Amino acid sequence: MTKGERTRREIVRNAAPLFNTKGYEGTSLSDLMAATGLQKGGIYRHFASKEELAAEAFDYAWGKAVTGRLDGLAEVPNSVDRIKKMIANFVERRTGLVAGGCPLLNTAIEADDGNALLRSRAKKALQTWSGRITGLVKEGKKRREIDARTDPRRLSQLIIGSLEGALMISRIDANDGPLEDARAFLYEYLEQKVRSSKRDASRKRKEVS
Amino acid sequence: MTKGERTRREIVRNAAPLFNTKGYEGTSLSDLMAATGLQKGGIYRHFASKEELAAEAFDYAWGKAVTGRLDGLAEVPNSVDRIKKMIANFVERRTGLVAGGCPLLNTAIEADDGNALLRSRAKKALQTWSGRITGLVKEGKKRREIDARTDPRRLSQLIIGSLEGALMISRIDANDGPLEDARAFLYEYLEQKVRSSKRDASRKRKEVS
Repeated sequence: MTKGERTRREIVRNAAPLFNTKGYEGTSLSDLMAATGLQKGGIYRHFASKEELAAEAFDYAWGKAVTGRLDGLAEVPNSVDRIKKMIANFVERRTGLVAGGCPLLNTAIEADDGNALLRSRAKKALQTWSGRITGLVKEGKKRREIDARTDPRRLSQLIIGSLEGALMISRIDANDGPLEDARAFLYEYLEQKVRSSKRDASRKRKEVS
Repeated sequence: MTKGERTRREIVRNAAPLFNTKGYEGTSLSDLMAATGLQKGGIYRHFASKEELAAEAFDYAWGKAVTGRLDGLAEVPNSVDRIKKMIANFVERRTGLVAGGCPLLNTAIEADDGNALLRSRAKKALQTWSGRITGLVKEGKKRREIDARTDPRRLSQLIIGSLEGALMISRIDANDGPLEDARAFLYEYLEQKVRSSKRDASRKRKEVS
């Protein structure tokens, strides 16, 4: 990595918590200068615009969020339990994240009527996350761990919507209760409506034999 | 109403869609001047600061949202059906609202780490909405229309979180599917877990007698 690439990366790393906390519009050039220790020219040598920097900062913050949410999933054998682990990671995981809450929620709300570049990044991030969940559901259906009637896209939207909405309430209320309740509720839904009873039966038979 | 009061009200009415669409930080003085047709002095004669104007614009936009969500509820006799009507209003109601989506969601996300006055307004708005739903639940329990085990606060947070999270997805995806799915899911939950089966039985007996 060249020195220029290292500097660019450091700027993104320092700008990410600013944009995620104060928003795109709320982050000023002087905030960015203070956080990076660079002058205007030093920042804009590496980025064509504040928008370009914000988009890269979003991708950086989102990457951290996704890594946190997928942490340890590979070690969980059953698809339903894997989805539950992802929900638990969302609710519990506070370290390793960029400050300011979920980058997708923050950016989606600010950019839904506004900035086209940020909106497209948020939309892509949503698709990626939703795609991960639908992938888990499809795999679970193939393996008969998930009920065949489960609609992967609808389930992924239910999970994402419930978690993000609960996060909004938890943050404005400064209280983790709503996030914990969303988890309890989604776990119950997964056990009652999503986990295949057939699979449980066949697994039990295998364990017996 | 004096001419000054009328002007003040007009400023709030014209500023509300700006703040709700572009956010507090994203709304500039020149945006406000263009929307109100007033000069800087003409606006700040009526408001001590942009913050004070934004807080009143939030209350105005929130008032419209609440009116829309509660529309027609009084005519619905059963408590569970009343909650379902409120959910339907959230999902369907698009007219009479201030442009830019749900003012609570927009303001909560922007102000959660920032502006203290706007954060306190968002928090109060959340409490008001949550209080309306918990009130409906408590009344429904008294009338034996709602299962005695239902926790009013947790149910209200589940409803608000699911709707607001689904709204975020619907807006960034430019697709009403997630909102419709959240409605279907909440209706099913209300029928299966919240509606009192005892009440149904006693109502049937009454209808028969």
